[in-house]
Amino acid sequence: MLTLYDYPDSGNGYKCRLLMAYLGIAYRYVTKDILSGETRTPEFLARNPNGRIPLLELEDGTHIAESGAILWYLADGTKFQPAGRLARAQTLQWMFFEQYSHEPYIAVARFWRHYLKTLSPLQEMDLPERMKKGYAALAVMEGHLATRRYFVEDRFGLADIALYAYTHVAHEGDFDLAPYPAIRAWMERIAGRGGHVAIDQYPR
Amino acid sequence: MLTLYDYPDSGNGYKCRLLMAYLGIAYRYVTKDILSGETRTPEFLARNPNGRIPLLELEDGTHIAESGAILWYLADGTKFQPAGRLARAQTLQWMFFEQYSHEPYIAVARFWRHYLKTLSPLQEMDLPERMKKGYAALAVMEGHLATRRYFVEDRFGLADIALYAYTHVAHEGDFDLAPYPAIRAWMERIAGRGGHVAIDQYPR
Repeated sequence: MLTLYDYPDSGNGYKCRLLMAYLGIAYRYVTKDILSGETRTPEFLARNPNGRIPLLELEDGTHIAESGAILWYLADGTKFQPAGRLARAQTLQWMFFEQYSHEPYIAVARFWRHYLKTLSPLQEMDLPERMKKGYAALAVMEGHLATRRYFVEDRFGLADIALYAYTHVAHEGDFDLAPYPAIRAWMERIAGRGGHVAIDQYPR
Repeated sequence: MLTLYDYPDSGNGYKCRLLMAYLGIAYRYVTKDILSGETRTPEFLARNPNGRIPLLELEDGTHIAESGAILWYLADGTKFQPAGRLARAQTLQWMFFEQYSHEPYIAVARFWRHYLKTLSPLQEMDLPERMKKGYAALAVMEGHLATRRYFVEDRFGLADIALYAYTHVAHEGDFDLAPYPAIRAWMERIAGRGGHVAIDQYPR
């Protein structure tokens, strides 16, 4: 059985949980509290030297870190990972966009505002910039979705899972999605899919 | 013929140029000056709404953004992209690590120190944190390379190309690589490979 080391509120972890739900994969869920340093213990660093969740442990004890790599591994050979060379690259384009231009702003603003609450002087000074870049990422998504139902080949897949995770909780970082009707319609389409699970539904 | 929109000093662009050199792919090289806003013009935004280089244009006019996605597309079916499911995921793990835990610190510190020179108050305040996280990424790499010649399956591939690009110019961000002998040996191995090109060698 696969094991997922994760923190329940993590959108990066949610991506993996959402895909495993769609794929009907049973797994062991091990909670690591990122707020109390449980991913920086010697025991956890032996599993992932980068000290981050989500982390997938295969049955033979091999570990895969980085949500995008975990998604790619789990979706291999399934309908969630396109078969064509160009569509695979387009899927990865949106997954890298998410990790570089979206998550560091939308997820980090959510983490600071919703979980930390008391910010350092650097975080206070940085927050307006994070909000601005988060809105820039939302604008890129809105433009793409204006004429499409899903991100790649107009079929639900890994790119949608990767982008949905933190976009659907962006309001917890005080992002206002009212001016983004295409994003809101896309989120409703995803939440209405058969087999969908919410961010707070995980094996206990 | 493929077209690469790029800025010559970009490590993200260099990844694509290095792979195309190894693969013997001829391409048209179009310089976009990121310092003067050439990636934010309406003309360029029509090609990549996220306003970033590198950007690959295929012969039919299709565009692929994000260096990791471009690498994945170009390496498809070649020895630089592993064939096995686990090794492909491990390659992507290191590529996502680079974009999330390495580039935002090592490449950004280099950009601020080497290119901007005059920093904003926020950048001044943020720089020590960027340096700290950059060194943390180098420590993860050093630990992995201590017992390996290359990042995945001990064979040179996309993960090495992705991580080499900004690591080999980290000194331009004032990172001191002296305490990282395994990284230095790995960089020498890469620079000594047949077909290697330097960051300032590109089609003119």
